[in-house]
This record gives sequence, C-alpha cells and structure tokens, in this order.
Amino acid sequence: MTTQETTRQTYDRLANMLRDTAALGGISGLLGWDEMVMMPPGAAASRSRQKAALSAVLHAKSTDPELGELLSQLAQADGLSEWEAATVRKAAKQYKKDTALTEEFVRRESAQETRGYTEWVKARQADDFTSFAPVLSEWVELKKERAAMVNPSGRAYDTLADDFSAGLTAERVTEIFDAVKAELIPFLAELREKGHAPDNSWLVNGDFDVEKQTALCFDIAKELGFDMDKGLLNVSVHPFTGGCGPEDVRMTTRYKQADVTEGLTGTIHETGHALYEQGRNMGEHAMDLPVNEAAGMAIHESQSLLWERMVALSMPFAEYLLPRLREKFPEQVGSRTAEDLYKAMNVVKMSNLIRVEADEVTYPMHIICRFEIERDLIEGKLDVKDVPAVWAAKMKEYLGVDVPSDAVGVLQDIHWNGMGAFAYFPTYTLGAMAATQIYETAAAQIPNLDDNIRAGDFKPLREWLRVNVHELGSLYETADELLVKVTGKPLDPRIFVAYLKSKYTSIYGL
Amino acid sequence: MTTQETTRQTYDRLANMLRDTAALGGISGLLGWDEMVMMPPGAAASRSRQKAALSAVLHAKSTDPELGELLSQLAQADGLSEWEAATVRKAAKQYKKDTALTEEFVRRESAQETRGYTEWVKARQADDFTSFAPVLSEWVELKKERAAMVNPSGRAYDTLADDFSAGLTAERVTEIFDAVKAELIPFLAELREKGHAPDNSWLVNGDFDVEKQTALCFDIAKELGFDMDKGLLNVSVHPFTGGCGPEDVRMTTRYKQADVTEGLTGTIHETGHALYEQGRNMGEHAMDLPVNEAAGMAIHESQSLLWERMVALSMPFAEYLLPRLREKFPEQVGSRTAEDLYKAMNVVKMSNLIRVEADEVTYPMHIICRFEIERDLIEGKLDVKDVPAVWAAKMKEYLGVDVPSDAVGVLQDIHWNGMGAFAYFPTYTLGAMAATQIYETAAAQIPNLDDNIRAGDFKPLREWLRVNVHELGSLYETADELLVKVTGKPLDPRIFVAYLKSKYTSIYGL
Repeated sequence: MTTQETTRQTYDRLANMLRDTAALGGISGLLGWDEMVMMPPGAAASRSRQKAALSAVLHAKSTDPELGELLSQLAQADGLSEWEAATVRKAAKQYKKDTALTEEFVRRESAQETRGYTEWVKARQADDFTSFAPVLSEWVELKKERAAMVNPSGRAYDTLADDFSAGLTAERVTEIFDAVKAELIPFLAELREKGHAPDNSWLVNGDFDVEKQTALCFDIAKELGFDMDKGLLNVSVHPFTGGCGPEDVRMTTRYKQADVTEGLTGTIHETGHALYEQGRNMGEHAMDLPVNEAAGMAIHESQSLLWERMVALSMPFAEYLLPRLREKFPEQVGSRTAEDLYKAMNVVKMSNLIRVEADEVTYPMHIICRFEIERDLIEGKLDVKDVPAVWAAKMKEYLGVDVPSDAVGVLQDIHWNGMGAFAYFPTYTLGAMAATQIYETAAAQIPNLDDNIRAGDFKPLREWLRVNVHELGSLYETADELLVKVTGKPLDPRIFVAYLKSKYTSIYGL
Repeated sequence: MTTQETTRQTYDRLANMLRDTAALGGISGLLGWDEMVMMPPGAAASRSRQKAALSAVLHAKSTDPELGELLSQLAQADGLSEWEAATVRKAAKQYKKDTALTEEFVRRESAQETRGYTEWVKARQADDFTSFAPVLSEWVELKKERAAMVNPSGRAYDTLADDFSAGLTAERVTEIFDAVKAELIPFLAELREKGHAPDNSWLVNGDFDVEKQTALCFDIAKELGFDMDKGLLNVSVHPFTGGCGPEDVRMTTRYKQADVTEGLTGTIHETGHALYEQGRNMGEHAMDLPVNEAAGMAIHESQSLLWERMVALSMPFAEYLLPRLREKFPEQVGSRTAEDLYKAMNVVKMSNLIRVEADEVTYPMHIICRFEIERDLIEGKLDVKDVPAVWAAKMKEYLGVDVPSDAVGVLQDIHWNGMGAFAYFPTYTLGAMAATQIYETAAAQIPNLDDNIRAGDFKPLREWLRVNVHELGSLYETADELLVKVTGKPLDPRIFVAYLKSKYTSIYGL
C-alpha cells in the first residue's frame, strides 16, 4: 500500500463523515424552513424538543474524536487536490471551534439565547432599555468568553467575525467603513439639502391585488433563473432563503397590498440568495462537503444585493419591468414611463430610523453605527449604559436624524439583543459593496449586459456569476481572496461610493 | 439511597433516552410529510441521503446497549406505575426486535425495498405477473427469514402481524374473517341479485368547484374537532395522516372536480386518524414515550373509519351535511333531501375490482382474499406462481366478479409487491369492525348521539373517544384487550355483520 493510497482512504473516510453531517444539516434546514412557513403555532414546544435532539446529534458528530484524528492525519498530507485541501482546512477550522467550547459554556449560551430573546421582546414593547441593559451586558461578556475559548491569543471581535465571514477583522472593517463615511456623510447631507425626491406614492401607496403580485413575483423569480424543480417560493413574516442544500432551496417573500415594491424587491433579493445556493450544486469533488458551502455571509449578501440593487434598481430593469407591471396593474401604472418607475424605485428615505426599511444610500450608515458600537463594546471601550447616547449621536452625525426612543434605536434589531450575534452587522454592507464591485467586473466582461437585462435575458449574468462566484464555494479562505480572484482586487470601497454618488446625483438632480 | 430511588432514577434515564428518540422520530415524520406535500421534485436524491443519515442515527439509538441495560434492570423492578410499566414493556419488545436483525439482513431488506418497488411499478404497467413472480417469492422468503430472526419459536405470520397490531395472530384473524365470510358472502349475493341501487350520479358525476370543496372540507374538519392550531390540512396525491406527533398532526386529502364524495370522505377519514393523534396529547406520564403511541394499525384505522363510516355515512350526518353542501353547490344539490344524500353516499360498488375504491360492504372481501393468500404464502401452503389463479377464484366466490388481468388483481397494491408488508391488510377490516363495535358502545353511553350529529355537535362523541380510546395510548398490550376495556368484549364480528345487514337491507330495499 503506497502512501498515496492511504491518504486517499483517509480522505474518503473523512468525506463520508462530513457528508453524513451535511445530510443532517440539511434536515436541520428543513426544520427551520418548516417552522417559519408551515408549522402550526401550537407545535412550538414539540419543535423545540426536536431541534434540541437534532442539535445534540450534530454536536456529537462534529466533535467526534475520530473526526479530529482524520483531520490531523490529513493536515500534512500530500496528494490532495486543491478542493480536497480546502475541505480539510475548512473542516479542521470548524472542528477546532466546535471542540473549543466547554459543555457548561454551551449550556449557558443556550440559556442566554432563550432569556435574551424573551427579555428583548418585552423591553422593545415597553421601550425600556434600562431594564434590558443587564441582559446586553451579559451578552457582551458571554461573547468575549466565547472568543477567548476559541482563540485565546486573538482579538475577540475578529474571532466572532470569523464565524460570519472567514478572516474578517475589526481593523479591516474600520478601514473600509471609514473610507465610506468620509464620502457618504457629506453626500447624504447634500442629498437632504439640495436633492429633489422623485414621486413614488403611486408605487408604495396604492392598492395592488396580492394574488396578482404573487403571480408577477413567481414569473420574475423564474425569469431570473430560480429553478422551481429544485426549490420553493412561499410566504413568511420575515423573508429568508433556506432549505436543505443546493437541490432543495426554499425562499420566502411577503406582499403588501399598498406597496408593490415590498414583494418585488423582497422576492428578487431572496432569488439572489437562492441562485447562489442553487449555483453551488457542484460535482463529487465538492457536493455536501465544507468546500461546497457559501463563502461567508458577506458574499452571500453580495449575491442577493447584486440582483436586488445592481439589477432590479437599474434603469434597464425598469424597462423590463414596466410592461409586466402594467399588464398586472394597468390602472395603477397608467402612462408612466420606465424612467418614472426607475426613479420611484430609488427614493432615499432620509428620515428613516429603521435599518430594515433603509435604502441603499442610508443603509450603510445604519450598519456603520452598529459596527462601531459593537466593536467598542467587545473591546471594553464602551459601557452598555452609554449605548443609547452614542447611538443617538451617531445617527445624528451620519443621517441627520433624531432618535426619539430606544425602541426605534438600539432595541430595534434582534441581532445583539435576541441572538447575541456580534460582528454580524458589517456583512450586510460589505455584501453591498462586494455586489457593486462584482457587478462592475461582470458588466465589463459580459457583452451588452444592459441590453440583456432590458430584454429579460438574465442568463448571461447568472451564468457568469455561477462560474465566477457560485461554483467556487469556499475554495478561497476569505471574501477578499475571492474578490481578488473574481475582480482583480480586494474589496474597494471607492467603487461602492462612486456608484452611489453617480446614481443619486442624477436621480436627485444635484 | 433506597431501592425505590434507584428504580426511579433508572426509569428517568430510560425515559430521557426514549424521549430523545421520539423527538428524532418526529423529525422523521416531518421528512415524510414534506416529501409528499412540499418537497420540490428535483430534491429526491438529496432527501434520500437525509433519510438514510437520520435512519442510521435512529438505528444507533434504538439498539444502544445502554438502552438494553436499562430495560433489563427495569424488567423486574417494583414501584413503577402501570403507565411506566407499559412503557418499559413496549420499549423492551421493540429493543428485542431492533437488535434481532443482523446488519447484513437489514441491508438486504433495504435493497429489496428499492428493487421491489421499481419492479412492481414496471410489472403493473406491463400487466406482467410472471416476470414479477420471482420478486414476490424473494419478499416471502425475506419476511420468513425476518420472522425467524425476531422470534425463532413463533409462527412467522404472527411475528409479522405483531409489527402492525400487537398480539395479532393468523389464528385469530382466520376465526374472525371466517365468521364474516359465512354471513357476508350470501348477503352480498342477495344485494347483487335483489337489491335496488340508489342514484348517486348527481354526487359522483357532477362538476364541483375545487376551491369550494376545499372550504367545505376545512369547515367540516374543524367542526369534527380537528385542532388547526396543532395541525395542518393539505393536498397530496395519496391522502395520509402523519406529521411530528400529537402537537403537530398533518393530514392531507385530495379533491375530484367530478366527485364531491372523494374529498369529503377522504377528509373525514383522515380527520379520524388526526383526532386520534391529537387526542394522545397526554401528560408527563406518557408524552413522547412508547405508551403514548397508537394502539396499533387496526385501532388507528378504527378511528378513521368510525368518523368516515359510522358518522359520515349515517342518516343524521346526511341531515347535517345537506344544507352545507347546498350552500356551496346550490345547483348540483337542488331540491334533494337528506335521505337522497344518505342513500347516494351508500352505494355498493358491486363489480369493482380495486380495493381502494371499495365501499364498506365489499371492502372486507377484498381484505379476506388478501389475508388468506398471504397467510398461505408465509406458511408455505401456496406457491407464488399460483397466486393469480387463487386470487381470481376468491374474487369470484366472494364478490361474484371476474378478474380480467393481474394489473387489477394481485399487482394492484403496493403492500406486498412494493413494500414487503405482509400481515398488514387485515388491520383495515379489523379496524372497520372495531369502529362498529366502539361506536355501538359510544351510542349506548352518549345521550342523544344521533341528535348531536344532526346538529353538528360532534364534541360529545369526540370527547368520549378521547377519554375512552385516545388517552389510553398503548397502555394495553393488544387491540382485543383495549376493546374489552372500552366495549366490554374482544372484537366481535357479529356486531359488524349485523350493522351492514341492517343498513343495506334498508337502503337496497331487500
């Protein structure tokens, strides 16, 4: 038996264990989807028990000493392909994380999740940050403790960020966001003071039959390339994309009778996520293995936002959409032009306080506010009790708005308060920036991309993304490495800022 | 530490292990439901991998030596309640079964399931029993082998039957079915020769808007008592009731545009199953433990058929249903009376060859034909090659019909051919008989039951069933024991025969 054969056999054994875990992970995805879309409300308690039982099984598998043994044998092995090596690297990193936490800590964290969520819901309803502050402090301490267990010598924020986008650091995010702030804060002030907002009342304050909206959104999702043979589109309170892996991708959306943009942009956003999922339906070398996973949350968000913003909020898409919208809603659309539609889709919500309702120009400022606060909390440079004041000051500085209450301030998001997700927020805006950068490259490489979109031919763009982004899975270690591969350079905030300035200078007649 | 405390602790440890397995079993139920109702078709291969992974986990849990250890410690223990003792008894029996089979056998059986199903679908399409006969022979041998492993000293048929209804034996089934045959064969002949079939063409050959049918069936399911807060009603090709346990019961139905009885009786049948499931939402002493399970397939079927036949095919129900049906379908119902509806719902399909399309009078004969054949196959008294001839002879003797081809004969059912389920068929008719017997007792104990049904007040019956049947779970070892508890005697075929004779003598004007 040659050494080569031994490495092969060891790798195959590893791959079988990982595929088994991936299959159980797919089941976990189904439980999550079902809970949001189908599960009757009275089943919540029994579903909790099912999730706990499955989690225990998954935990046992992901911390199995045999897995650790195989991984350390393969760490130094020759003869693996770059895909296999990436699987080994990614699995080893995950194994290190999974085995780093004590059982006692995991139990404590899980208890805090229940308590945190419940207390947050109460505090938000009562608009009472003071009574919630101890819970937020507990979250901060717990997450610092987690980071210290996983990587005692690392910077805590970076360790936490790594779970959402591998290799992401506070330093890198600060560098990028500072560059955005320097340009975007004055530009937003200019928009507020000198800009002329387009009329979008006919689009967001109308009466749009939900059944017709649904038909329109199904058609568009299919035309964008969502494969209904390997996926579902349903309705849920909070739209999301999940399911059981590339062969069973389930996305949801929601419709508002008054505002047709809600369902449209929501569906297109989720279709972007879903195309990324379906686009990773790869061969034997990757399928059901860690290298087949998404390249982190920032890249995942780049795929949803590329379709939602770079495509669906563009002028060529307005030309594609107008006749379809008119066919379903002739009275509401009337004689409006594609330019009217384009402008109405791109109104900046200047005085908006709520992140999830923000547009592409103000959204980054909501994120930067949160990032700076969470970074300073984790690094011990900010006291929890001072968060509301800092929040208000930043919102004033970045967006020119006053924050009348914590319910529409620090208590608005589930991330820190209800889930303990610190270092997650940056991925939204890093994703938006990556979308702009990737789209710029795509537009340079795909002949007549605007014409394609105008004509409803989304295949060239979708295929370009599949080959250049989706099918790379997690082959590269960080989002920046992937961006270098795809666009020739790491994330460059100037591309994003230039895009926003050029687009909104024109729309707002600056 | 007293002995009492030790038993308690041992039992608690057992209960925790069993609850954990039940939670994973609930997940398995979700996978099954999802596959039939929601799953996109392209996800079949990935779903197979998920099911295989979960099966492996469940198998490991159900054959865990620690489980065996706890069960043997508790087998002789004092101080357990009757509920706890029943859980121990049932779990021990299951453990013995689960550990009796070799891995090699389980693999062979699983391979045969794939092969059997595929070959059966082909053979039925080609109407070719000869080429399928070897597969059926393999099934028979495999099931005899299984029975010998599980219980070397038992009668093979009885061992197989025990999986579907604990304690059921070929001898007992023969005794019951012989009594039915003696009465029902001549009665059916009389019906054929002298009876006058009511007109049901307006009900089964019409045009009934499916959306209206759906609304009607939802209303009726809710009025019967199906708790939509802890369950779902959807559509699938083959109606079934499944889901994830008493807090999440999912039933399906199907609608035919031409035949409103299809959706109605299907929904009511599944509601009967679902009420049994929801009715076992018991306390700590039973919940998620083996004693909380259904008392076998015959009793499960008794609950669906009690609502489908004893209730929904009765005259009082026709009086309840008529105005509801007329409201949705005024033209189709016209001036017809409740008696017209009652009679139209109770037409005997004299020349029908297909079991699943049979009515309550002919259905038992389809089952008896199958039982006698499978019993003789398993006992080596009948050769597979002779099955078509025996089938034809029995169908002629029992129902007076000629069997023109095996596709509508032995190849019609999935049970033996595609699944290897021998000793399952009797539970359908044993369930029908138990339904009659249980209903007779209920009618004697509930004041004015007919009036309740006429008025759409199903609560007294439902609550009576919950208390007297559902909440007993698997407390008693066999269906006959449960029937003694509920009705005062074991299954008595005379009640069933008397019910059919009296009802159809009147409807058919004998």
